[in-house]
Amino acid sequence: MLCLKVPTDSAWALEAMRDLDAVLVDHAHCELKAASNSLSLAARYPLDREIVRALTDLAREEIDHFQRVLSELASRGRQLGAPAIDDYAVGLRRAANELPRASHGNPLVDRLLVGALIEARSCERFRLLVEALDHTEAPRHLHDLWADLFASEAQHYRVFVDLAVRAAGGDRKQTIARLDWLADAEARIVVGLATRTQAVRATIHG
Amino acid sequence: MLCLKVPTDSAWALEAMRDLDAVLVDHAHCELKAASNSLSLAARYPLDREIVRALTDLAREEIDHFQRVLSELASRGRQLGAPAIDDYAVGLRRAANELPRASHGNPLVDRLLVGALIEARSCERFRLLVEALDHTEAPRHLHDLWADLFASEAQHYRVFVDLAVRAAGGDRKQTIARLDWLADAEARIVVGLATRTQAVRATIHG
Repeated sequence: MLCLKVPTDSAWALEAMRDLDAVLVDHAHCELKAASNSLSLAARYPLDREIVRALTDLAREEIDHFQRVLSELASRGRQLGAPAIDDYAVGLRRAANELPRASHGNPLVDRLLVGALIEARSCERFRLLVEALDHTEAPRHLHDLWADLFASEAQHYRVFVDLAVRAAGGDRKQTIARLDWLADAEARIVVGLATRTQAVRATIHG
Repeated sequence: MLCLKVPTDSAWALEAMRDLDAVLVDHAHCELKAASNSLSLAARYPLDREIVRALTDLAREEIDHFQRVLSELASRGRQLGAPAIDDYAVGLRRAANELPRASHGNPLVDRLLVGALIEARSCERFRLLVEALDHTEAPRHLHDLWADLFASEAQHYRVFVDLAVRAAGGDRKQTIARLDWLADAEARIVVGLATRTQAVRATIHG
């Protein structure tokens, strides 16, 4: 799906269905982190106005998503709670740092590709949630929430890839090669996390 | 003005008028930093849903303001550029860490009060910009931009103070005492920055 190299373990959606509150808390924090990350990239790489505007548009959308998830938590009587440690994103950024230096020399490209991969994996997991909810008696609006966000994450994935190509001076071929390399690393991280924790966790990227 | 203990040196507005581009670049980064800071507080102190919602509302508004300033820079043919080192905010956070521990024990209170002070000083400076622009032939929309943001920063100041009182369990008296102590520190920082740099800088808090 999108650029992903391994599908999520089928046990994940079952575990998520068993603890929807935990998934929602983790999802809310993922949106906050995504918004913060977009703002941080805009501040650190301010030289291309179109990229800066697109990143801050993304941040605003991610805040909107966060608030939708927060409202869902409120309607379930749940607090937001503290974020889980995000080994997935940490691992992915570390992998990006190990990529050989690009010929265009712009470190923003790989940061944008990391963003693209995180969106792709979220997108895949939201689809699994939507499919799993079809077999439960969970309220319809929860299904709609994740169906909406599934579509939105797919769109964000494409925005990140397009911005990465732009940041690479339009070199789509080299950018897609780097995305492919990072997607291999992402697959190893996802498989590794599931193995290491000895149990699938009810988190978006766990 | 608001809770501020010292007015800005009158030389500041003159310097700002001499380099409006620099002021706009610095202002844009201030909005980005404010948005990031609001998101960071929401993520680190997630237990009060009303505070989390208010902080993410603030972040969205700050992104809107950032994009207005970015458009203004674009219309002037200017890039955003890298942010200046923000000795003002660093000094203010350091001062907050020196405050004796509050009886309510919630470190979020002081972080929110730092936010309130930053908004108060921005608000004061935007008013100075608006007044100074009245005596120049600068385009009217620049005047309107800072007049709008002047009103908005005053509102944000009040939101931060109210959130701080809420985070202190409703203890307005203790919260205002801490704000007063921090306002003394803020005054020393503002005076110190002007003295140290030997020249007033065309930055929002410089």
